[in-house]
Amino acid sequence: MEKELAFFDKIRTVTPYTPGEQPKNQNVIKLNTNENPYPPSPKVQKVLEAFEAGVLRKYPDPLCTELIDALSKEYGVSKDRIFVGVGSDDVLAMSFLTFFNSKKPIVFPDITYSFYDVWADVFRIPYEMIPLKDDFTINTEAFVNTDCGGVVIPNPNAPTGVILETSAIEEIIKAHQDSVVIIDEAYVDFGGRSVLPLIDKYENLLVVQTFSKSRSLAGSRIGFAFGSEKLIKYLSDVKFSFNSYTMDSITQKIGAAALSDKEYFTETTKKIVKTREYFKKEVSKLGFTFPDSMSNFVFIHHDQYNAKDLFAALKENNIFVRYFDKPRINDYLRVTIGTKEDMDKILAFLSEYTK
Amino acid sequence: MEKELAFFDKIRTVTPYTPGEQPKNQNVIKLNTNENPYPPSPKVQKVLEAFEAGVLRKYPDPLCTELIDALSKEYGVSKDRIFVGVGSDDVLAMSFLTFFNSKKPIVFPDITYSFYDVWADVFRIPYEMIPLKDDFTINTEAFVNTDCGGVVIPNPNAPTGVILETSAIEEIIKAHQDSVVIIDEAYVDFGGRSVLPLIDKYENLLVVQTFSKSRSLAGSRIGFAFGSEKLIKYLSDVKFSFNSYTMDSITQKIGAAALSDKEYFTETTKKIVKTREYFKKEVSKLGFTFPDSMSNFVFIHHDQYNAKDLFAALKENNIFVRYFDKPRINDYLRVTIGTKEDMDKILAFLSEYTK
Repeated sequence: MEKELAFFDKIRTVTPYTPGEQPKNQNVIKLNTNENPYPPSPKVQKVLEAFEAGVLRKYPDPLCTELIDALSKEYGVSKDRIFVGVGSDDVLAMSFLTFFNSKKPIVFPDITYSFYDVWADVFRIPYEMIPLKDDFTINTEAFVNTDCGGVVIPNPNAPTGVILETSAIEEIIKAHQDSVVIIDEAYVDFGGRSVLPLIDKYENLLVVQTFSKSRSLAGSRIGFAFGSEKLIKYLSDVKFSFNSYTMDSITQKIGAAALSDKEYFTETTKKIVKTREYFKKEVSKLGFTFPDSMSNFVFIHHDQYNAKDLFAALKENNIFVRYFDKPRINDYLRVTIGTKEDMDKILAFLSEYTK
Repeated sequence: MEKELAFFDKIRTVTPYTPGEQPKNQNVIKLNTNENPYPPSPKVQKVLEAFEAGVLRKYPDPLCTELIDALSKEYGVSKDRIFVGVGSDDVLAMSFLTFFNSKKPIVFPDITYSFYDVWADVFRIPYEMIPLKDDFTINTEAFVNTDCGGVVIPNPNAPTGVILETSAIEEIIKAHQDSVVIIDEAYVDFGGRSVLPLIDKYENLLVVQTFSKSRSLAGSRIGFAFGSEKLIKYLSDVKFSFNSYTMDSITQKIGAAALSDKEYFTETTKKIVKTREYFKKEVSKLGFTFPDSMSNFVFIHHDQYNAKDLFAALKENNIFVRYFDKPRINDYLRVTIGTKEDMDKILAFLSEYTK
């Protein structure tokens, strides 16, 4: 900007996170933001049809009772151990603000969800990144032995899709009982295993999940967390200090409706897992390699083709995937699992490209 | 809590804001949270009827283009000078975080919106409160002459309803061009005058408004701000560092639809102003006094009756108003302006009570 502001010294300046592109063109095959290819449960449409707009003149229920009740029922966790927010980004940001308030650095993997270091920066939280091993698995030993102010690990990890077994996560939680350990399970419903049962055993564990992927509700912004009663209380206190009414009345109802349709949830997540396994098999045949993914995306690499060029070529052909121009992963592409038809289209393109 | 947590030293503990009660009982006359007694524009219901739930599988437009366009058109402000958030609380919290990042205390009135000191606490922003004059008007001179890191003034002020003339606000903005001055205009549509035109003149002015009151959309959570291109850019950077997708797809459409119905907006706000003037006249006859309100509430006091007792008596009779147990205002009740019928019911009760 041409001229410095008179009050520039009082402004918190940050380098913002860049979200995946949302192309306006509707003819695009959109495999770049890990969205679910299927619509949400038909029960969601019913909520919209039945909703009386007059209700909106009133503030929403600040406690999100209907949604919390539905989560409590579905996951078998008591209500005072559940927190909800405007997407898991909101839940995670509030958790960083609440739990990472010491001078010790927090730790997370070097290759991981790109928002962690952004939140650490905005909240002035010191952090250190623990490198993944060469095969993109988490270095459990390094996470166990670090002296830190908190831990965040996504499981499955993003953008690699790799999972860490529960026993390894438990070792890490156990080693850091003087800090909060956040396990970010945004992609757990596609074949991973949640560490949710461990909240009964460890007061310092927070498990975060979202409706954006497996419940096809990225457009509605619903995230949630499970933890000990005490963790949830401190988190809620900060949240209520920030904004008492964050989740609007319609979204609360939509979330509860989606949760009530277990059959649809099981069916659509199963379909995605099946398509993912199909895509893995087919893309291997073209010479691509990838860490074994248990999420709704696959992180592909080809020894003979430059990822950045391939990314551009795909985009040119209206196929959007995600490319990260970052050390260690700048020769990979993250491909979201869409419908079988979507994957056949990208496979056809890749087959042609690698001929 | 019985036992201290092992990681208590790493937690940000706060005293949370207590929102006004949301009674479950539907037979209550709810005059406690400054909600609009009328439903939102019929165009909002149409949005819900036409909305295809399938859209929700995708992330919302992070730039809220449709809503920003509608605001730009309605208020005649270019798009790069508009910011939107999840209610004005979200807009204000992000603004505190972005603009009040110096060691100098920010200033706001001692009697004002109860969230200001809560945000200052959660973000560790030093603050000083400048007492209102005895008649509950803002002490302009004191605001002009203070050496501070930023200024926040609601206009009309809450819970007093008192307005400050534009010339006085301009003096304050002018005196603090090395800081950001936030004018919180949550209640401006009920007869106040927005300082919006001043953003052309002062780079340090941020004007914040909301859909919760005058547009009957408290349940949807939409707030917005106008400011110089530079202020909006810094604010957006912090917002995108926090959470890229905060406003869900349905809410964006609802907001744009409500804005497009100017006729309905004018009609309903006029009705509320008319009912407020009627209430003022009638409640005076019962011996109540109040600072002159230009908002959708009146802050009443009676020399012969204790406000806390009256609050309890009203509640007992299913009439909810707001009582603040705070110095200087603990003998007042904030009464939201409802429909004429609502106000007649509370007047009947007060008439009986003061007999």
